Parts: sequence; C-alpha cells; structure tokens
Amino acid sequence: MSPIQNSPREPVGLARYAGLGTFARLPRLDEVSRADVAVLGVPFDSGVSYRPGARFGPNHIRESSRLLRPYNPQLGVAPFQTLQVADAGDVAAGPYDLPAALTAIERHARDLLDGGARLLTIGGDHTISLPLLRAVAAVRGPVAVAHFDAHLDTWEGSYGSAFNHATPFRRAVEEGLIDMEASIHVGVRGPLPADTDLTDDARLGFTVITATEIELDGVRAAAERLRARIDGRPVYVSVDIDVLDPAHAPGTGTPEAGGLTSRELLVLLRELASVDVVSGDIVEVAPAYDHAQITGIAAAHTAYEIVSTMAVAPHPARSRPAHTVPTDAMAAPAPAATA
Amino acid sequence: MSPIQNSPREPVGLARYAGLGTFARLPRLDEVSRADVAVLGVPFDSGVSYRPGARFGPNHIRESSRLLRPYNPQLGVAPFQTLQVADAGDVAAGPYDLPAALTAIERHARDLLDGGARLLTIGGDHTISLPLLRAVAAVRGPVAVAHFDAHLDTWEGSYGSAFNHATPFRRAVEEGLIDMEASIHVGVRGPLPADTDLTDDARLGFTVITATEIELDGVRAAAERLRARIDGRPVYVSVDIDVLDPAHAPGTGTPEAGGLTSRELLVLLRELASVDVVSGDIVEVAPAYDHAQITGIAAAHTAYEIVSTMAVAPHPARSRPAHTVPTDAMAAPAPAATA
Amino acid sequence: MSPIQNSPREPVGLARYAGLGTFARLPRLDEVSRADVAVLGVPFDSGVSYRPGARFGPNHIRESSRLLRPYNPQLGVAPFQTLQVADAGDVAAGPYDLPAALTAIERHARDLLDGGARLLTIGGDHTISLPLLRAVAAVRGPVAVAHFDAHLDTWEGSYGSAFNHATPFRRAVEEGLIDMEASIHVGVRGPLPADTDLTDDARLGFTVITATEIELDGVRAAAERLRARIDGRPVYVSVDIDVLDPAHAPGTGTPEAGGLTSRELLVLLRELASVDVVSGDIVEVAPAYDHAQITGIAAAHTAYEIVSTMAVAPHPARSRPAHTVPTDAMAAPAPAATA
Amino acid sequence: MSPIQNSPREPVGLARYAGLGTFARLPRLDEVSRADVAVLGVPFDSGVSYRPGARFGPNHIRESSRLLRPYNPQLGVAPFQTLQVADAGDVAAGPYDLPAALTAIERHARDLLDGGARLLTIGGDHTISLPLLRAVAAVRGPVAVAHFDAHLDTWEGSYGSAFNHATPFRRAVEEGLIDMEASIHVGVRGPLPADTDLTDDARLGFTVITATEIELDGVRAAAERLRARIDGRPVYVSVDIDVLDPAHAPGTGTPEAGGLTSRELLVLLRELASVDVVSGDIVEVAPAYDHAQITGIAAAHTAYEIVSTMAVAPHPARSRPAHTVPTDAMAAPAPAATA
Amino acid sequence: MSPIQNSPREPVGLARYAGLGTFARLPRLDEVSRADVAVLGVPFDSGVSYRPGARFGPNHIRESSRLLRPYNPQLGVAPFQTLQVADAGDVAAGPYDLPAALTAIERHARDLLDGGARLLTIGGDHTISLPLLRAVAAVRGPVAVAHFDAHLDTWEGSYGSAFNHATPFRRAVEEGLIDMEASIHVGVRGPLPADTDLTDDARLGFTVITATEIELDGVRAAAERLRARIDGRPVYVSVDIDVLDPAHAPGTGTPEAGGLTSRELLVLLRELASVDVVSGDIVEVAPAYDHAQITGIAAAHTAYEIVSTMAVAPHPARSRPAHTVPTDAMAAPAPAATA
Amino acid sequence: MSPIQNSPREPVGLARYAGLGTFARLPRLDEVSRADVAVLGVPFDSGVSYRPGARFGPNHIRESSRLLRPYNPQLGVAPFQTLQVADAGDVAAGPYDLPAALTAIERHARDLLDGGARLLTIGGDHTISLPLLRAVAAVRGPVAVAHFDAHLDTWEGSYGSAFNHATPFRRAVEEGLIDMEASIHVGVRGPLPADTDLTDDARLGFTVITATEIELDGVRAAAERLRARIDGRPVYVSVDIDVLDPAHAPGTGTPEAGGLTSRELLVLLRELASVDVVSGDIVEVAPAYDHAQITGIAAAHTAYEIVSTMAVAPHPARSRPAHTVPTDAMAAPAPAATA
Repeated sequence: MSPIQNSPREPVGLARYAGLGTFARLPRLDEVSRADVAVLGVPFDSGVSYRPGARFGPNHIRESSRLLRPYNPQLGVAPFQTLQVADAGDVAAGPYDLPAALTAIERHARDLLDGGARLLTIGGDHTISLPLLRAVAAVRGPVAVAHFDAHLDTWEGSYGSAFNHATPFRRAVEEGLIDMEASIHVGVRGPLPADTDLTDDARLGFTVITATEIELDGVRAAAERLRARIDGRPVYVSVDIDVLDPAHAPGTGTPEAGGLTSRELLVLLRELASVDVVSGDIVEVAPAYDHAQITGIAAAHTAYEIVSTMAVAPHPARSRPAHTVPTDAMAAPAPAATA
Repeated sequence: MSPIQNSPREPVGLARYAGLGTFARLPRLDEVSRADVAVLGVPFDSGVSYRPGARFGPNHIRESSRLLRPYNPQLGVAPFQTLQVADAGDVAAGPYDLPAALTAIERHARDLLDGGARLLTIGGDHTISLPLLRAVAAVRGPVAVAHFDAHLDTWEGSYGSAFNHATPFRRAVEEGLIDMEASIHVGVRGPLPADTDLTDDARLGFTVITATEIELDGVRAAAERLRARIDGRPVYVSVDIDVLDPAHAPGTGTPEAGGLTSRELLVLLRELASVDVVSGDIVEVAPAYDHAQITGIAAAHTAYEIVSTMAVAPHPARSRPAHTVPTDAMAAPAPAATA
Repeated sequence: MSPIQNSPREPVGLARYAGLGTFARLPRLDEVSRADVAVLGVPFDSGVSYRPGARFGPNHIRESSRLLRPYNPQLGVAPFQTLQVADAGDVAAGPYDLPAALTAIERHARDLLDGGARLLTIGGDHTISLPLLRAVAAVRGPVAVAHFDAHLDTWEGSYGSAFNHATPFRRAVEEGLIDMEASIHVGVRGPLPADTDLTDDARLGFTVITATEIELDGVRAAAERLRARIDGRPVYVSVDIDVLDPAHAPGTGTPEAGGLTSRELLVLLRELASVDVVSGDIVEVAPAYDHAQITGIAAAHTAYEIVSTMAVAPHPARSRPAHTVPTDAMAAPAPAATA
Repeated sequence: MSPIQNSPREPVGLARYAGLGTFARLPRLDEVSRADVAVLGVPFDSGVSYRPGARFGPNHIRESSRLLRPYNPQLGVAPFQTLQVADAGDVAAGPYDLPAALTAIERHARDLLDGGARLLTIGGDHTISLPLLRAVAAVRGPVAVAHFDAHLDTWEGSYGSAFNHATPFRRAVEEGLIDMEASIHVGVRGPLPADTDLTDDARLGFTVITATEIELDGVRAAAERLRARIDGRPVYVSVDIDVLDPAHAPGTGTPEAGGLTSRELLVLLRELASVDVVSGDIVEVAPAYDHAQITGIAAAHTAYEIVSTMAVAPHPARSRPAHTVPTDAMAAPAPAATA
Repeated sequence: MSPIQNSPREPVGLARYAGLGTFARLPRLDEVSRADVAVLGVPFDSGVSYRPGARFGPNHIRESSRLLRPYNPQLGVAPFQTLQVADAGDVAAGPYDLPAALTAIERHARDLLDGGARLLTIGGDHTISLPLLRAVAAVRGPVAVAHFDAHLDTWEGSYGSAFNHATPFRRAVEEGLIDMEASIHVGVRGPLPADTDLTDDARLGFTVITATEIELDGVRAAAERLRARIDGRPVYVSVDIDVLDPAHAPGTGTPEAGGLTSRELLVLLRELASVDVVSGDIVEVAPAYDHAQITGIAAAHTAYEIVSTMAVAPHPARSRPAHTVPTDAMAAPAPAATA
Repeated sequence: MSPIQNSPREPVGLARYAGLGTFARLPRLDEVSRADVAVLGVPFDSGVSYRPGARFGPNHIRESSRLLRPYNPQLGVAPFQTLQVADAGDVAAGPYDLPAALTAIERHARDLLDGGARLLTIGGDHTISLPLLRAVAAVRGPVAVAHFDAHLDTWEGSYGSAFNHATPFRRAVEEGLIDMEASIHVGVRGPLPADTDLTDDARLGFTVITATEIELDGVRAAAERLRARIDGRPVYVSVDIDVLDPAHAPGTGTPEAGGLTSRELLVLLRELASVDVVSGDIVEVAPAYDHAQITGIAAAHTAYEIVSTMAVAPHPARSRPAHTVPTDAMAAPAPAATA
C-alpha cells in the first residue's frame, strides 16, 4: 500500500498562497493511488430559492482552505497523516437540468464511495444532499443525519418543485435513506411558513436543537444533547453554512439573524469524533456575498473538523473508548505521548 | 370587519426576491381598511454626529425583510395573521430643516396612532424617537422605554443643538413623555465623554444593563433584570442597531466594539412578549456601511420580534398569564395544539 | 510640570470626523512636553507569510479611533486625563530590509522609553514585537507577556527566515527578554503544523488559554486563569487582532475561524488593570481586508483598554488594593464620588 | 382621457431617497388608468451560464433610478410628461421551471402590449428577450432588433439547453420574430467559441458593430452605421448591460474587458430617437457584483434614454423630419421656445 | 524669506504609506512660516440632497494623495518647489447649523486669503463653494468660475432651503461674486427637473460644455472652448467629482452615468495653466461609496493639477506667453533645459 | 508530435465556473508533452513600495480567465489550437529573501524557455521582470521591450534597494538585456519624483507614449508610433496593470488617475501581432483591492491578446506580410475562409 501523500503537490518551498488550488493544498485524487476521504466539489445552485451563487462555492472554499495545517490540536489528530485525503475535483453538472444534475452527482459520489472513500463534499446548494444521501445509503444503508442549518429543509416543495434546497431531507426520509432514530437538526431558528413545519418535521422523526437553546443553555449542553441523539450510530454530517450567524457567514443564500458563531459550530462538530462519520457535506457558500473569505474560512474549518472526526474514528468496527467531548487537546499543552 | 391581509400584495407565485418592496412583503396601508400595526419609514438622518446615511435605512430594512415568514416559532405566534400589519410608507421630511422634520414625523405618527395602529418605525437616526414618543405619549400617556443601544442618548446637546441623535431620551424625560419607574438602557458600552454621563442618566431615572454584564452573567440574567425593571407596564421599545457589535451591524453610524450578538438581542426582545408593547422603533441603520445585508437582516428580524411581541399581547386589558421568557417554542417540536 | 493635554489638537468645535488624524484625536508628541504613554505606529509588514497589508494598519487604527471618548466607564478611569498620552507618529522603516527595520523599530521604541513613556504600539505585523520587547527589556528587564493571538508565534522559522511574524516570541525567549514564570498565550486555536508546536511552546515555558476553553468555560474563568498566571508581575501586552474571530476582525493576514468576540477580548484586557502594564502592542490589522472599520474599531478599543489599564495602575510601586476583575463600573450607574 | 401622472406617488415633499420604490419614482400601473409605456420587471436568471444573480436586477435598477428627473436635455423631451409611463411590477416566474417562466413572461408582456402599452422591461437575464419578442411580434409582427451586447447571443445552445441567455436571438430568428433586414449587434467583443459563431450569425442575417470599431472610428461613425442599418424601421431595443466595460458595469454575469463607456452607450441609444422604438429591455444586471450602484445607474439611464426615444417618436404613423443624431439639445442652452 | 518646505514633515526614510496624513505629505500650515497655497479641508455635508458622507471627504482625499510626487511632467512644473503649499487642516463647522457653517467656512477661508495664500479646498459638499466664493470675491473681486460638474448647481432651492449643494452658483451670481463674462459649466449631463433649468442658467450668464460634446468632438475641442470662454481672466476652479463617470468616481452623492474619464478631466484642467487660477475646490467625494480609493485618487490628482496650474502662473501680474494647452511635457522625454 | 490539448482537463460537461483552476482552463504543463507557451505564475510581491498583495495575483488572474474562449475574432486566430499553451503553475519563491526569489524566478523561467516554450508570466509585482528578462536574454539575446505602465520603472533604487518594482528596466538596461533601439514605455503619466526621471530614462534609450498623447491623438496614432518604434524586432511585452485607469484596474498597488481603458490596451497589444513576441508578463494585480474581478478580467484578456499575438506569428523565421494593425477581424463577420 502506498504511503499517504499529504504534502502539497507543488515543489518544496511553495508558499501557502502559491500553487494551483486544491482543498487544503492536498493532492488531487489522480495523483494518489486511492483515497480514504475524497473532497468533492459540487458547483451547482439551481435549487436555490433566494440568493444564487453557490455554484462558485467549491473553489471559494478551496481558496479559503490554504491556511489549514496538518495537526488538529483540539482533537489531537493529524487527519491528513492518518487518512489519505485527496481533492476529487468537481462534478460535471450543468445549470439547466436539475434532474440530470441530481443523477450526475449521485453517480460521481457513488463511484468514489465504491472506491472506498468517504465523501467530504463542498457545495453547491443544499439540493445536493439528496443525491449524496442516495449514494451513501446505497453503500452503507440508512444512516443518521446530523444536520446543521438555520432551516429544517423538510418542506414539501416550493414553486412547483419537489427537488430544491428546501426539501432534501423530506425526500431522503421518504426514500428511506435516513436512520430516523438518531437524526437531528442543529441551529434552527427564524420565522417559518407555518407552525405545521415543526409538527411535520417532528412527524418525520427529527429532533431539533435550536439556536436559542444554544444561547440559553450553552454549547456544552447542546453537545450533550447531540451526542445523546446520535447515540453512537453511523452519521452523515450536513452543514448548511447559514447555520452560522450572518456576521460569521455573510456569503450565503438565505441568511437568518441570530445564528451560531463559528466557534460554537466547531465545538459541536468535534462531538462527532466519538462516532463513525460516514461522509459529510458543507453547502450554501455563496462567494459573491462573502467578504475577506469570512464565510469561506468558516467553511474550510468546518470541513477540516469533519475530516478530523473521520480520522479519530476511521474504522467503524474498531473498538474505542467513548470520546468525552467537548474537550480541547490543545488546552493541555503536551498531548498524551500515545496520541 | 375585513379579514387580515397578510399575503404578499403581488400575484400568486411571485418569488420572495420579486415584487415591489414593502416590509416583509406585507400590504401597503392604502391596500387595507385599517392596520393594527403600521410600519412607518422615517428616512431622516440630519441628527447624525458621525457617519450619516440612515436616510437610506427604511428601504434597506424593507429589502432585507423579504425572507421573513409568517410564523414565529420561538414565541409560537403568527403575527401577521393575528394582527393586520401594513406598510405605511415613509414620512415626508426634508433633510434641511430639523425642527420641521420633527413636526412632520410627530404628525404622521400621531395620525397613524389616532387611526388605531401601533407603530413599528424604521429609521432614520435616533433623533426621530423624540417626535415618536411625543405622539405616543399624546395617545397613551407616559410609557416605559426599553432602550437597546450602545449609547445612553441622554446627552444635553452637541454642536450647539439640543435636538439630535444623542439627546432624544433626555428631551423626552424633560417633556414628561416617559414612565421613569420602568425605563432602562440595554447594551450600553464604550467610552463616554465623562463620568457625569452616568450620574446624569441615573438622576433622570434610568437604569442600565451593560454589554459587559451580558457577557459575564449571560442573557438569561439580563432578561430577568429587564423584566423586573419593566414590571408589566406598557413599554415603548427603541432599538438602535448599534446595540449590536460591529460584526453584527457594520452598517451604522457610531459603532462601538464589544456589543451584543443578534441572537442575544432577539432573545431579549422576546422577553417583552409578556407586556404591552405600545409601539417601537429600529434606528441607525446606515446601508452604505453594510455588507450583504448583515445589518439590514438583523434589523428586519428585530422588527419581526417586536411585532411578534405585539401579537402575543395585543390587547393590554386582556387577562393573560405571566409569560415566562426566555423560552423557545421551537425547541418543543410540536407546539401545543391550542397555540 | 505642564498640565495634561487631552483635548483634540484642533480648534474648538471641530467634529469628531474632522481634523488631521492622530490616535483618539490626541496631541502629537511634538505638541506636548512629554508623554506618559506614546502611541507609536509601525507601518511594517515584510514579516507577513500570507496576506500582506498591515503596513497600512497604523493610520487605519488612527482613523478608526475618532469616536474614542475620554472616560472608560468599565474601569472607572479617564485615561487621557490621568496620563499624558500622545501620538508619536510612525517609525521610519522601509519595506525592503527586515534587519534594518528591526533595528529602526527598536531604536525608536527605546528613545521613547528612555524619555519616560510607556509604549502603545500600533502595527504592523507581529514581527515588530521582537524589537519592541528588546527595547522594553533593556529598560525594564524581562517582563511577562500576555499574548492574545490565534497562533503561538513561537515557530522556529519559515521560508528560511528566523525573523518573521510567526517567530517573535521564540526569539524573545531565546534572548531572555521575557519573564517565563508568568507568560501566556490567550485565544489560540486552529490547525498547527505539528503536535510538536505545542510541546515546544510548553518547553519554552508558556501556558495557553485556548479559544475553546473560553467557549466552554466562559470568559470569567479565563480571566481568572489569566490573572493567576500573571500573578501581579509587570506585563507586556501583545494583541494580534486575529485573536478575534474573522467576523470581528476580517481585516487581518492569517485569519482562523472560531475566535474570540471583541467583547470577550475587552473584558479579558480589563483584567490587566490589576497589574503593571509596562507597554503593549496591537498588530496584524490589514485594512485592505477590513469592512466599515470593523477591525479598525476593534483594534482602537483594544488600544483604549490597554491604555486604561495603564491609567488605573500607572505607578508600579504604588500600593493599591487588588483589583477584582472582571468588573463593570458602568453597571453601577453612579461611580464612587471620589473617583 | 385622464391626465398623465408623472409625479411621485407619495406625499408632496418626499425626498428622492424616500418612499417605496418604483422605476424613476413613477406611479404604479394600478394607480393610473392606462400606460403608454409599462416598466416591467422580470426577476428571472435561471438561464445564466456563469455568474447568477440577475433575479435581483429589477429592484436594483428601480433603486438606482431615484435620481432620474423629468426632462431629457440631450433629446429635448420630457418623456414622463409626453407619455404615461408606469411601473407594472414584476412577472411571477419561479426559478425552477424555465419553460413555464418563458410562458409566464410572454403572457404578462402580451397583456400589457394588448392594453396599448409599449414595454420597457428590466431583467433578468437575456433569456427573457425571447418571450418578450414573441409577445411583441404577436402584436406588431417582426421588428428589427438593435442589440447592444458584448456577445452575439445567437448560439445554438449550451449544456443541453436550447433556451438560455446565449440563444434568444437565434431562437427568435428561427421563429420569424425579427426583421432581419435591419437587425444589428452593437458592442460585440471578446473571445468566441469558434470562428463559426461569426459566420453563423452573419448567415442568420445580423450585422455587427464591434467595440473595437467604436474605439478606432468613434461613436459618431458607429451611430451613423447604426442608423443606416435600422433604416427607419420599427425597432426593438435590447441592451445587455455587459455591452459596457466591466469598469462601467461590474454588476453583471459574463463580463468582458474592452467594452463601451456608459457615455458611448447613451449617445448611441439617442440615435434611435429617429425611429419607432416598439419596446425594449435592459438585462443582465447582477447586483451582488455591483458597487455603489455603478451598474444600476448605468442601467437606469439606459432605460431613461429608451423611454425618451419613445417619447420623441411615440406615434409611428406621425410624419416627422428625420432626426439627426447624435445631437445634444443641452449644448444649446436655450432650447427652442416651442419645445 | 524662509525656503520652501516640500518634503514630508516626518523623518527621512518614512515610506509613502507611513506617517500622519496631510495632503500630498506636505507640511502642515503651522510648520511653515507662510503658504502660497493653503489646502483647506471642509468636512461638511449638511447641504446634500441624496447620498450624504462628503464630511469624510477631506481626510479620504488626503489619504489618497500619498503617492503624489513633486514633479508634474505634463505641465513641466514642480509645484511644491515653486510654491509653498501647506495643509491648513479642517474648518470647524458642525453638522447641525448650516448658516453658522457657511459663516465659519467663509471666515476661515478669508483668514487664509488675507494671509496671502490661494485656497485649494477639499470638501465637503458643493454648498461650500458659496462661502468660498464670498471670501475670494472679498479679496479679489468677482472672478470667473470654471465649474466642472454633472449638474448646473444653479437651482433656485430645494426642500425649502435656498442654501444647499444644488444652489451655490445661483446664490453667487445673485451676490455678484462671479465674473459672468467668462464663467462656464463643463461636463453637464443627465436628466433635469425642467427645460427651464437650462434657460435660467443661460439667463444667469453661464455657458455649458456638455459631456456629450466631449464625447462627440473630443477633449481638444472642449479645451479650446474652455480657453476661449475663460479668455485669460482670473478664474476660480470648482470641481464636483461627479463630473466624472460613476466608473471613475463611485464615491459621490448624486452620480450620473455618461460622465468624463479622469484623463479627460486632467487634460482640461491643464488648460487653466494659461490663466490666473485664484483658488479652487474639489467637492462631493463621499468615501463610504468609494472603492480602493478610485474616487479619492481622482480627486487627489485633480487637486494636484489645480495647484500645478497655480505654479505655472502664480503671479497674475507677471507677463508670460500664452500657454498652448493641451500639451504634454512628458511626451518630449527631455524637458527644456531651462525649465 | 502529440496533438495540441486545448480543452479543459476536466470531464466533458464541466461548466466554465467548475473545476480546479488553471489559466483559461487549459491543461497543466504536466498533462501535456510539451508547451509552445507556458503560463507561469509568480506569486511574489516583496518588491512593492506601496500597496502589497500581488502575491495573490496569479490565482486571481486564473480565476478571472474562466470565460476566455478559444477563438480571437479581432486577430482571427485560435491561439490554443495553433499553439500548445499550458499552465506551468507557480514559481516557488518565498517572501523573505528577495535575491533568492530573483534567482528562483530566473531559473524556473529558464527551464521553461530551454524546453522550447515562450513565457506568459502572471505576477507578482514588477520586480519579477528583471529575472524574466535575464532568462529571455540568455536564450534569445537582447530583445526590445514594449512596456505598458503608468510608471517608467527605471528608477535608480528606493529605500536602499536596487531591486524592487520601480527599477527592473534600469537594471535590465545596465545588464544589457534589452534592445534599446526599439524599446518603449506606453501609458506613462502622473507625478514624478523629478524631471530627471525623464531625462535619465531617455538617456537609457527609451521612448515614451504618454497617456495624454493617447487621449489627444487617439489610439490609432499611438499604435502607429508603437509599431514604428518596435520596427519588426523581437519584443518582450511587459504589462503593468496600472497602465489602466483605476476605474479599469482598481486592484493594483500604485494606482494613478488618468490611465488607459482596457479597450485601448487591448487594441494596442494587437498591434504586436505583426512581430515576434518572444515572451511577456502581466504584473501588479493586487486582488485585495479588486472588485468583481474588474482588474482580474482585464489582466486575463491582456494575457489572451499576448498569447494571440504569439499565435499569429509563432515562428520568427517565417516569412509573413506586414500586419496592418489596428484591425478587427470580427467587424468583417465572415473571416477569410483560409484563415
């Protein structure tokens, strides 16, 4: 088995701001024999209902990820050394045919999963989570979804379309792709079309941690609730960047005031280090509304934490002690020698 | 009595980003027979001492309110169904004659109040709170003021002018417009001209919840203090958007570091659902300094929470149980059937 | 001894937005006989490894400081009345010769220190802390460093250079400039090159308060830890503005998600009012990436809190009761009459 | 017949920056009995191939049109006094179904045309010109097209779609909607997919005035060529704002360097005052990429010149002397007394 | 007589981006014994009718002038060596009392003129040209006005005010401050309130060179017309930065499409090198709408050309050959040895 | 010989906004056997004297080049079909050691030239032209330089450094790298340090076409002068993007008002189609100051025209008729069948 290639592809001495861009300056998938984690771009935003532009999200997140370094001190793991992570480039999905795009995304994702990789998908609007979950479920069966978002994304449809960025998780439930014993929305807030949104969502089987709860009870309590809900099951992580407050993520399509800070989100994601994160996505980054890569950097760090959780627990079958999160390996300046 | 009209004025199928703009895509006042709440724009900023531009605030807030939806899950109320809310357009107040503008604003506000509406005013600089309080006091007598702001706004005057955006509440106290047993500033911070600012303010009768208190003791404690101070009395809510940190509200005229998050502000505003909110304003949104509507969206959500508090307790005489805030109806996924 | 000159240098009646710019509209150093605190600009960024532009930092911070007023209500002190603070202008350090620049910065700083002033330096990139610490140590001997930053800045070197913005504190330790019994990094977070960064840093003698700790345990606990670590010793304060989250400080060179809010930083800085702050710097403000002075204002308030801590305890030998921070003099509306 | 209503709808004294927005602060269509010219918004951008966002174009152009005043000194006409111009609001066309949107646009346009109005459409991406031409041709038969654009927009298709913003004029030719004896592209430039683009376009019957010609020969010569080609026939004007250089129109979806100045465009449009302008559109304004309304203002002035040409020659049958454009009525300070 | 001081006030070696800001890094007026030209800031914008913010104009222009170097190759003059130019700081004029501000501006200007200086005023909105012309006329009698602007600025009044940024030249004519045999507007364009604007303006005695004329006939012809109109008389130059196209000056308050390029403006200003430029102003720079100092740099170069014209012909009585402008000394690489 | 690969490297169907970025979506150099033209990024800006940031230029230009299509209608050539053009990635040159960087750049350039490629370098600041000219001269001997810039860049030195972005062409002359019979600066303007700048520059042997000449005499005359000066000799093209006006290129480090339009620049560059363009560079793009890729797009089109001139005349020895430029193949809609 070939050794993991985690240094930049370019010549030695290339500065972080230099070189053709890949996620975290990792090798392209075609440069390595295989990948444990494939970073897949989905430049598609035809499912957007308000501000479009997430089609430019993948490369914006890549450019914003140049400062990511190899060692994650909070989790005490070096994900790019533990796992072969590689940039798989972008899905070819044109803007004019939504059903064709869903098919292309699912197929590309399935190919990567079949090759043994987990997916770390960078969108793209939230519509793409449906084909991604289809591909994941085909390989792994129904998995729990840890869904970080300002919105429920379980609408019936809108503007006559059943497939758009407000519906992926309802469709996924209907198609039996999700483990409804352990799925949860985190960060939900803001006005809703109707109170039935909540009852419908609950009937589908989701639970909710609202942004207000995080404000009032703190992130530690929320992490506890998240862990209890996931309950050790395999989980797909889906992060809509609008789970963050507009101050932390101006570059998105349907912003809502009163959101999470990036610090809260990163702490909550680290909670997933205790479970088998089968794949994940980060969606709804719309660069035209970003400033100084505030949003892009938050998304890049989000992706980094997700891949770190995969690196902490890459082998689902592996017996490992219960992770006590939130923790902070950095706070103890000398991480355990055996880490 | 005509039914409440709360759907967009435009043809069915119009997307949220489409159509001529009103606050929250509500009907214009001339389209409905009467209003319980009139959203009034005051495009006036001649009272500004630093960055001008709040004259463009009303339409910026309107544009930023297009995503507001009918149901408020945190308070468990659908304000636009409970109350007839309508956009009353803008006051005609030219930029060159401040006294004439104060008169015009008071008169326009008074007409709306006399017609039975509460006011939800979108400014404009903070100078406008004085004529608004004059109009409210004429109809309702002195009311408590819940004033969210980085600044006290009880200066004696500046640059030779007694009427500007730093003086409205001193003038209002002098004119007997405010119930000084229950009035409070929330979010105050930053350097002051002199320590006498604080003693003068206290002598007028105000109490203060500082931004630092909110940091150290949490928003729940602040909400408790706010409720205790209001003590069930009728209250006028005045929100200077600079109560938020510049990260959450860059688009304002006299920004101060160390402010509130939008989430904290929204939680605190919900506390007012337990009392009779007679009217309110949101001021000091200066769009030229905003980015991606961060500030505008925070202001729109602020307005939405204020009107929601009116909807929860629209009839002051009505007997109702004490509201236990902060709460979060959304956290309980299935709101009580009778809600 | 001449009286302190703390009013703007310009004619009476000049608005805050008017007049040639100095920090906080204070007198220039050449206008006053001497200074207790000299605000020194270091427009130098040749030590930057990612986004350059901090050479424009000093004047950006000056422009962003125009709203700073004389009285600090949180600490109950009027720093510009207690101390003669003056703007010393900028160091002459060209962009092409880093060693020459280090020498010029040290010499300019030393001249001011020798004249009896403390330094409040506005950078410039973090490379400048090394010559500043050299100058301070020459006058005061080794002092503790309270270092607020997303990064450790104790790297061995990079791109073949031992002197750049990632290495000042390692060099300073090696040169014996720092009191390692009481030095601390606050706000550290984000991916690291290797786990040895942490062990190396600990071996140098630093302790760390991470951003995650602040999230989980709160700012009060962090303030407690900071105070315990400083333990009453003389301290040099160095604030890299990237200690703040990119939402609060987009205008910087190596941003990391998950940072502090400006409110947290200001509260922590006030903790230093109990000790002898011998000098301080604020670095890494890169205006080209700022928006509406969000970053500049945060930096200006940071500088204001540092000079306020100097004003609370300007005479190290003076006997004074232990300061119980965090506190908030403003919360008590009528500060003690004798203040 | 009711008199023309051309003053703002709002109360007397309302400043230009105040009041709910319509194009040029004109009355809404529902406020007047009928309109000679209907300003119709088409917030639709699902035909975009690169940067989306033109769905926000209509209201951006409306906001950018607030400074438009009644008298056009270059053409010596007061269009809003000569013609009843009114804002017809926006077409209801959802983002997910392109064919349905084309139908909705055509129907809405047709209704307005059938009511006797000419159309001044503000988009929206260039896809919308096809349904607009369908509606115009149904009423007026084939008309010449004066097409200002960086691109030919006569592609066969792209990404498997025959209907998008690169194909409207090929489809229109195929459907027989255009008078090919007098149609012309103005401002074309930039790299093409293949040289056959030019031969295909010529075979369809178009002629071209390139941006380079305007540089080398001047706008007067271009105006001459434009007039000769139109040759007095009824003309539909279609302005893709990317005909302007990115310096003059950054807020657009497929920008190309080397474009026209806004001054050149306005002079060329005035040339059309000599013919019967049956309707017109301004498309591809993408506000997320605009700055300080540079693009929006250029679009608003473009619209103003188009409606002015309609006002100069509103009655096609009317006998009138050949207009000798370019001219500049303002240059002669005292326009003819009978004007 | 003391030698001219034209080097930066700061230590040798200070980079152009370093040091406290003055116009072109020139000495402050208090640093030199006297000035031939005083650069006076007027941070006042209470006369603005649309976008405010020009109060921040003076320091924005100063910051944007740091790259101005001593030698003007187009005119073959080193203005800061020929004349003592110094920065006089800002007028103290509060925002709330327009009449008082007019008085303060006139008095400050008069003091400088009485001291023997010409004025190069940086605004501020156009209202300030009236008190400046009053001061100039008091010293020099009526002078011609070369007025570069998109607008005529000879309105009767607006919003009930006779004194604002749309009326200075009508008031000045009424007060007899202007030599109406030689005054001219250059760059006028865009819609007008009524055709009587033009007839009124002509009746006052102005002539006009429109932006359209410059497009059609070229800048050389316009320069010729300008020179013929000025006819060698003493002239006051007033440049509203909105004479430039919004692409060249987005940072202004009442932008109009179809304007001049900065290159055209600079060429036209050089034409004035043949006459006695008694004083001048640059107004309406609103930094909040600027980007990357595009507008500020254009204003700084405008100011530089004006002071250069003063340097070419500083002594009105001096006999000198008629200057043949436009010319370009730089085009001849070796300027005459005697220059 | 392998066929030219000019389609995007990614899967068929990938949209222009999708896929990992290379210049014009061309293959990477490692994907093709050899290149006729290598696009080389030089992310280096340590030679900048004012605004830094050009280190981010190469990838900004790459991202801004995604819309470049294969066929150049103005020159009637399909450069990527005629020549194998490939993206060679970036030079590894750290920011801290300018001499080492010059060596690395020269070596990398030399390797590519030795491999038979011409260089199309995207910077980076103008310092890099010196090592590039060293490499070119080593292979081709001294060549003429067609230098488009606001500045002469023939200074002796600055801040004690002989090697920076203001000196490359003086150094190159001194080293004998340039054919001084045919070298020329185009677009020069703005204030100079001294009149000796011009005489020194002329003594070195350069001629100058100023921006003012282009304004007064037109681009056709300038093209004529340029052609006469080059006189058919082999030429190196160096474009400092600040040759454009700040309106057309805000994203640069030392902007000067009064510059060229992008259209003028493109027309002038096409003039070089008649000669042997041995290599070229585009420098000084500083993305932090850009907006909506205005500058990046201008730079991308500049690069495209340069490579097109290489494609028109790729074989220096080839006999070909004198090209009569400016011309515009697009103006003739059907290019000659044999083209």
